[in-house]
Amino acid sequence: MRLASLFGPDFHATLAEDPQAFREALEEFHEEDIAEIVEELPIEDIVALFRVLPDDFGAGVLERLPEDRRSELLEKLKVEEAASLLAEMQPDDRADAVQDLDEGLKDKLLAQLDEVEPEAAQEVRDLARYEDGSVGSIMTTAYVGLPPETKIWKVIEEVRRLTKERELESLYYVYGLAFGDKLVGVASLRELILADPSQELADVMAHNVVRVLDTEDREAAARAIAKYDFHAMPAVDLQGKMVGMVTVDDVVDVVIDEATEDAQKMGAVSPIEGGYFQTAFFDYWKSRVTWLVVLFLGGFLTANVMQSFAGEIERVVTLAVFIPLIISTGGNAGSQSATLIIRALSLHEVEPSDWMRVLGRELLAGITLGLVVGVLGFARAYFAADTDALSLALVVSVSIVAVVLVGSLVGSLLPLLIQRVGLDPAVSSTPFIASLSDVVGLLVYLGIASAMLG
Amino acid sequence: MRLASLFGPDFHATLAEDPQAFREALEEFHEEDIAEIVEELPIEDIVALFRVLPDDFGAGVLERLPEDRRSELLEKLKVEEAASLLAEMQPDDRADAVQDLDEGLKDKLLAQLDEVEPEAAQEVRDLARYEDGSVGSIMTTAYVGLPPETKIWKVIEEVRRLTKERELESLYYVYGLAFGDKLVGVASLRELILADPSQELADVMAHNVVRVLDTEDREAAARAIAKYDFHAMPAVDLQGKMVGMVTVDDVVDVVIDEATEDAQKMGAVSPIEGGYFQTAFFDYWKSRVTWLVVLFLGGFLTANVMQSFAGEIERVVTLAVFIPLIISTGGNAGSQSATLIIRALSLHEVEPSDWMRVLGRELLAGITLGLVVGVLGFARAYFAADTDALSLALVVSVSIVAVVLVGSLVGSLLPLLIQRVGLDPAVSSTPFIASLSDVVGLLVYLGIASAMLG
Repeated sequence: MRLASLFGPDFHATLAEDPQAFREALEEFHEEDIAEIVEELPIEDIVALFRVLPDDFGAGVLERLPEDRRSELLEKLKVEEAASLLAEMQPDDRADAVQDLDEGLKDKLLAQLDEVEPEAAQEVRDLARYEDGSVGSIMTTAYVGLPPETKIWKVIEEVRRLTKERELESLYYVYGLAFGDKLVGVASLRELILADPSQELADVMAHNVVRVLDTEDREAAARAIAKYDFHAMPAVDLQGKMVGMVTVDDVVDVVIDEATEDAQKMGAVSPIEGGYFQTAFFDYWKSRVTWLVVLFLGGFLTANVMQSFAGEIERVVTLAVFIPLIISTGGNAGSQSATLIIRALSLHEVEPSDWMRVLGRELLAGITLGLVVGVLGFARAYFAADTDALSLALVVSVSIVAVVLVGSLVGSLLPLLIQRVGLDPAVSSTPFIASLSDVVGLLVYLGIASAMLG
Repeated sequence: MRLASLFGPDFHATLAEDPQAFREALEEFHEEDIAEIVEELPIEDIVALFRVLPDDFGAGVLERLPEDRRSELLEKLKVEEAASLLAEMQPDDRADAVQDLDEGLKDKLLAQLDEVEPEAAQEVRDLARYEDGSVGSIMTTAYVGLPPETKIWKVIEEVRRLTKERELESLYYVYGLAFGDKLVGVASLRELILADPSQELADVMAHNVVRVLDTEDREAAARAIAKYDFHAMPAVDLQGKMVGMVTVDDVVDVVIDEATEDAQKMGAVSPIEGGYFQTAFFDYWKSRVTWLVVLFLGGFLTANVMQSFAGEIERVVTLAVFIPLIISTGGNAGSQSATLIIRALSLHEVEPSDWMRVLGRELLAGITLGLVVGVLGFARAYFAADTDALSLALVVSVSIVAVVLVGSLVGSLLPLLIQRVGLDPAVSSTPFIASLSDVVGLLVYLGIASAMLG
């Protein structure tokens, strides 16, 4: 869907001549859809379009524009126009939008926002303190917190007032705050609707509130919300004072981002922000070159091992024939174990302290899987050899069992160790595990060969 | 937290002597936490505990138990007890719970449920028709749909009545249904609270409703909900009749499941349901053995290539020294490209029709990345050779550029091709790409060597 298909090719004329009709047509669509059309227009058209849209609808579209276009638009608009758009945005998106701007413009906009809506300007400053990736960086300050002794009819009246005034979109819970905004309870909108209006908030709210610390990793909030099937979750500071709320729609984005990041690390790519085509070629290149070079330099070890067994290979060239097969089988077994363990670690199904159980399972799996492919390898080698077929087939099959076992153990235990020392296990990427098991596999195979073939 | 730590080691005595105190203590906790304690108890204790809990709380705990324990409990309870627990469950969880039982018990329970709550029994039968993985399999039938001409005050009264009667938990939208339950509009609870009670639902509802088909893949609903930041989304049948609602909490689970499945496929593991330790050893073993054997048999090709170049290797043994380094570098480049493309495909950032743009980017990336590691490889080979160092270094470095390029192209274009023919691109796992580039890498390296070294 393109704007031209809505308004004909000459949408500039429509925009100039009948802004009212234009506005009404656009308001029929979801803000997300408008944002998708708008992001591909030249900046002058975006500016013209936002001048026609009412601020509250424009703010919704602005929240959904990609960061670079959002910053561009805020730069091109007059400071007064930008500030009144910002005033209508959700607090978390507003903070992100201001954060992305140049220092000069940021200060000018905050000063203007101080005049239009001082509370919003203060919120931007408060949220700016939180680190990227923390709960504070994804939480919103648009929640309803009231003293527990508030009557239910009064609570509902407050909800109506705040919803109107503060553009609250995600309203599912009312929080009970006492003793200086300390979080003491929570009631769902459902419970409020069902309650007798003359009761107090304290009568219907639950006192055992699952909460998250504002400075914790945003994944902690995502995990808790996913686990309890919450629609929102309160964030508190170290003193137990409520400072914000994380909503489930942000959690969906966090879960998708983290899975992408894990997948990229596991594929030996430094995480890239933005999509495949959105990432500039040089950034794409950079995300790959470091790991490719590191793995390549690590691969020098395989050449060293090969050199030190050059004599054996010279004597029995058929030995070399099975090198690629054996080392890649060890790598495959290692990738399998690493994939299963790294994902289990990131879902908190397995912890580093479980290493004994993991070791037991992988020992058994490694030996039995190794026997299956080892038998196949025996047959392949037996029929390939010119002379001394039995010895070669034995060396090959024993080596295969060994590399599958070693691959499984390295692939499963290394991520546990990496997590144990406080690093992200996903960096023990499957190519890294595969390269490591290349070296070990060569040592095992050529070592066994040298011992058995004398 | 264990039950014993709450009630002392003798919780059986407490349960028998003071069930009331027991119940009250448990109700202080979230159903999810109770479920986590309960799932590790012997089945007799679980039965005793559920007999003490009120049905609505028990139903909440039951919804959160793992499938096997849930089925076990429903089998051990009297049919009447099981049916009244089921009656209090959320429709989607209820349908899942009944679905998992043996045919005999299923029929008996449905017959009993027909007596207690015939509507619920019918819903179970309706939801049972949907395929696993479809929108219908995750949607709930607990939503509020009313004629558009309903007055707002009447809408709110209906919401109150239905919330109480049908245990609606996820209530964020009211849907406008007309002409035989056709979906014609949607209003958020926020809009209803803000509206003038004397208006009609039609006055406040949006008419352009984003919807999903009940038979579509559940990922379609997950994608739309994530994209629009919805909290719930209506599902309709082919006639446009509303048949259910997908809520964002189910979407979080879908997103996590799909990411896990993708990660496992990419690591050459058949997806396993349940966690690392929850999966029985034999199922774990099965998830690995097929791919390991397939990749091993595919690896026979590398042995074939090696055999056909045995003459060259025999003449220049130093050639063999670099085989592991060269083929694993091609595999690494392939893994990188495959990881980036497969994730981009599953997030719908890239489509198979983009293959020309992908080809362009990967050509450029492959050649330039290949040159970086090629220069390093030149140096390593130059200093390793005894004689004719320049020729060997040239062969090695040209081969490295070639394998990085081939790896990048295969790794990026193969997933696009697999998606194009209608299969899941994640099955072109990184080990699969690596194995394929092993064969190609060997052909390239030994072919170039044979040509250049004469």
